[in-house]
Amino acid sequence: MRDVSAPERRYVITFGCPDRTGIIARISGFLAEHGGWIVEAAYHTDPDTGWFFTRQVVRADSLPFEVDVLREKFGVVAESLSAESNWQVSDTGERKRVVILVSKEGHCLYDLLGRVAAGELDVEISAVIANHPDLGDITRAHGIPFHHVAFAERKAEAFDEVRKLVAEHDPHAVVLARFMQILPADLCADWSGRVLNIHHSFLPSFIGARPYHQAYARGVKLVGATCHYVTADLDAGPIIEQDVIRVDHGDSIADMVRKGRDIEKVTLARGLRWHLESRVLVHGNRTVVF
Amino acid sequence: MRDVSAPERRYVITFGCPDRTGIIARISGFLAEHGGWIVEAAYHTDPDTGWFFTRQVVRADSLPFEVDVLREKFGVVAESLSAESNWQVSDTGERKRVVILVSKEGHCLYDLLGRVAAGELDVEISAVIANHPDLGDITRAHGIPFHHVAFAERKAEAFDEVRKLVAEHDPHAVVLARFMQILPADLCADWSGRVLNIHHSFLPSFIGARPYHQAYARGVKLVGATCHYVTADLDAGPIIEQDVIRVDHGDSIADMVRKGRDIEKVTLARGLRWHLESRVLVHGNRTVVF
Amino acid sequence: MRDVSAPERRYVITFGCPDRTGIIARISGFLAEHGGWIVEAAYHTDPDTGWFFTRQVVRADSLPFEVDVLREKFGVVAESLSAESNWQVSDTGERKRVVILVSKEGHCLYDLLGRVAAGELDVEISAVIANHPDLGDITRAHGIPFHHVAFAERKAEAFDEVRKLVAEHDPHAVVLARFMQILPADLCADWSGRVLNIHHSFLPSFIGARPYHQAYARGVKLVGATCHYVTADLDAGPIIEQDVIRVDHGDSIADMVRKGRDIEKVTLARGLRWHLESRVLVHGNRTVVF
Amino acid sequence: MRDVSAPERRYVITFGCPDRTGIIARISGFLAEHGGWIVEAAYHTDPDTGWFFTRQVVRADSLPFEVDVLREKFGVVAESLSAESNWQVSDTGERKRVVILVSKEGHCLYDLLGRVAAGELDVEISAVIANHPDLGDITRAHGIPFHHVAFAERKAEAFDEVRKLVAEHDPHAVVLARFMQILPADLCADWSGRVLNIHHSFLPSFIGARPYHQAYARGVKLVGATCHYVTADLDAGPIIEQDVIRVDHGDSIADMVRKGRDIEKVTLARGLRWHLESRVLVHGNRTVVF
Repeated sequence: MRDVSAPERRYVITFGCPDRTGIIARISGFLAEHGGWIVEAAYHTDPDTGWFFTRQVVRADSLPFEVDVLREKFGVVAESLSAESNWQVSDTGERKRVVILVSKEGHCLYDLLGRVAAGELDVEISAVIANHPDLGDITRAHGIPFHHVAFAERKAEAFDEVRKLVAEHDPHAVVLARFMQILPADLCADWSGRVLNIHHSFLPSFIGARPYHQAYARGVKLVGATCHYVTADLDAGPIIEQDVIRVDHGDSIADMVRKGRDIEKVTLARGLRWHLESRVLVHGNRTVVF
Repeated sequence: MRDVSAPERRYVITFGCPDRTGIIARISGFLAEHGGWIVEAAYHTDPDTGWFFTRQVVRADSLPFEVDVLREKFGVVAESLSAESNWQVSDTGERKRVVILVSKEGHCLYDLLGRVAAGELDVEISAVIANHPDLGDITRAHGIPFHHVAFAERKAEAFDEVRKLVAEHDPHAVVLARFMQILPADLCADWSGRVLNIHHSFLPSFIGARPYHQAYARGVKLVGATCHYVTADLDAGPIIEQDVIRVDHGDSIADMVRKGRDIEKVTLARGLRWHLESRVLVHGNRTVVF
Repeated sequence: MRDVSAPERRYVITFGCPDRTGIIARISGFLAEHGGWIVEAAYHTDPDTGWFFTRQVVRADSLPFEVDVLREKFGVVAESLSAESNWQVSDTGERKRVVILVSKEGHCLYDLLGRVAAGELDVEISAVIANHPDLGDITRAHGIPFHHVAFAERKAEAFDEVRKLVAEHDPHAVVLARFMQILPADLCADWSGRVLNIHHSFLPSFIGARPYHQAYARGVKLVGATCHYVTADLDAGPIIEQDVIRVDHGDSIADMVRKGRDIEKVTLARGLRWHLESRVLVHGNRTVVF
Repeated sequence: MRDVSAPERRYVITFGCPDRTGIIARISGFLAEHGGWIVEAAYHTDPDTGWFFTRQVVRADSLPFEVDVLREKFGVVAESLSAESNWQVSDTGERKRVVILVSKEGHCLYDLLGRVAAGELDVEISAVIANHPDLGDITRAHGIPFHHVAFAERKAEAFDEVRKLVAEHDPHAVVLARFMQILPADLCADWSGRVLNIHHSFLPSFIGARPYHQAYARGVKLVGATCHYVTADLDAGPIIEQDVIRVDHGDSIADMVRKGRDIEKVTLARGLRWHLESRVLVHGNRTVVF
């Protein structure tokens, strides 16, 4: 079912440090010194904060050592540039693991399952966890474990179960695919930087519950969706991706819900892909998306 | 899994005739005379051809007779306006049947299956017919019959089988969801007005095979998709819907394929919905989409 | 410089009333009775409020009387349908007059001047009023009177002058084309239903001052613009049109301002056109745009 | 009228060469060696042709020499990387000169004049040359020389005049802003790489004359515009930028023309800006737009 041949193995370096002269030369010089063949490189300087960011993709077979040695050696470069912990080396040879949290509404889940089945999103969906049993059959039909965790009147215990289930898979991303439950602050902290939500509005418009109803009441001419990292502030985390679709006076709330879903699906899928490809660097409450 | 309550039953009248004074009065007068409650009404006059079009949606329970009587009575009105066979009354109380033809690439099929499972597209997918067995498991997991018809070195016989399988369901729409086979002219004729294709380019650009490769070679900055009725002229039938997505120099052909799929899916889903809701009126090689 | 021939004269009826059976028949029957040739017709029923809306465009030469008689006769129909004052008949034979209020930033003004000069927007710009003199030369080069009204430390008197200048032209639309001054409540009331603002954000996001700065700080991935009727509630009036444009981490606030301007211009131009063509019906705080 | 402070002076290096290991290190090492402060950097590798591209923006005041010395020294680097003539150093301290060729339709010209007047496009429009006198007044009102060159029955002489007028200004860009005349092959060659056209369709759809009429006849649901470099092949040169806008069955050809103009204007303006900022690198018949 795969229509693209597997790309060759690559190491992806993401890096941020205070801006100064010679950073690019230092990093690319380090790579060149070891024969590193850069196949993708992106840079950004934030003039407001005076901060520099880069993402470098290197062919694994061009380097004479393994990823652990690369991490060790690059760590010396990073330290010399005062990057502190603002860098990372990931390995496309390691298949990315994703855990998806859902409720009853399946459109985002169906979309992600379809993308994986079609070979378009090359990840392992390690598990789907839900506070309702409804989406179990389709999940299992895709050969993916489905865990139903009852939330009614036992929210704290339920979140403990979820935490444990997630921990078993040590996933690269936890995706709230219309999960409809507000994460407790400690889970936001534990999963910080790898928990993504899809919110069904163009944030910061229509934070919180029933955004399509809010949008209808305000009479907007476009509805949107926002994929963002989850933080303890509701719907206020760093935005990864947004998109919108046109609505008009003929659209009922149900029509807006339906049209909006198409945007939710693609916005979440793009945000998740970029996260897993190490394209998203968080800086304060903003993101750099390379 | 349904998030919208079933709408009340409605009759949908679509109608075209040479333009003249008083058509709207005649049709709406007819409906008012019988107490018909119009919940949606759209009109269009084509100044080039001097042709008039309308679509009227009436609450079934507002009329004192059934759909067959409505057809009979409205037929008299239509005849008096010289509409000949350019009118139709459909009944939302009849669930629409769809047969989907696929090959190996599953993204459009997964998308349609997901929409039906989520209750967003309220149709019966009567069968999926494929010239490869790959998409059978997921189709069956959705409880839908899957027919594998081998095409290699027996195309004529294969199309005969397909014709028979389709005929068994007498579907309101036959969907070529990346079927990758050119329909013979007699099937185009038999299924005329109810066979939809999704072409993976912004027609009339890049007709025929490998449109993403053509798009890459030309260096376009957007790729698109076109949902159209199939006629005997390859990729030249009346266009129902089109959409595009941005690409740039960093996108390989594989990236363009991936990005384009998101557009193929929504363009086909919109086109199919409009067709099944009797929103699409064909006039020459153009469509009116109400 | 005109590239389209003047369309023939038309009467445009806009109408709203509580929904019930037979409204379309009543209105179209009235028109048919007098030989009225409907060239455009649109309908909308708001299921929430149970309100019905229509816009009908009739060829003037198809009716045996002038617009005043049409108004008188249609008034009887409207009264019989309990429309009260929710209807209007406008005449495309009367050229629409527009007064534009600006400050220093000229992009929306240049855009509107260019559209009129190119014959694309067939209106009379009766006057441009500004609280700074900067945009005078170009305005006058287009043959349009320019009034500089100083606002510094005399806002109340200045608004009185503006009110008088506007009153001299009795315009069909007063356009705040990045005017940057908050209208006093009494002017909002006086000009109610014909004063349009372009706000440089996708409302309801980023109400008030410096929306691009707010957008930058929040890290949104799209910036937008909103054309709305002005009411006494700041940036909260009925929305006519909105649009957005993509931005990314590489865009500074100045870049966002520049990209956003392209959206402000088209959003305002579309909203103004629709208003002048009597396409916009206000219902509560929402609009129907036919 | 300017709303952004002038950015500090910068040197912009654009560069292409066959890909190999160490190019980024070589170029960034060269810049670092001289203290060059890189404020923007972009890279692209074309896997099909095995070609590498980069654009580097350096603060002029960070280097200890002038642009000519930079060119000389960088030339040595370029030669060592087999770049041959595929590199360039431009200086933002030199204001870019543009000559615009028009006919009768003014929308693109008005748009560019407005952008320059608003300070948004920081270029010198050295002259406007037209084969009709209609757009002279507004051009001169902006303080820009206007040359009317009659084409009727003397096309060859007329193009000679145009060539001479353009040569007087040695512009960085010659813009065909709906010029409606096909450039002779020798002018395409003389102005190669700096003559931009705006074509009023989404190329390669609807090449040649009356594209909106072609689009209407085909019944497309979107119309577009394409900004491309002009070559001797009509409408077939490398594409810089494209965009589209939605149309529907209610749109006449005149409506499509009007809607399309909004897209022509922004597409041309973006393409021109990118060209003048040295963001566009041509490779075969495709462009890299950094």
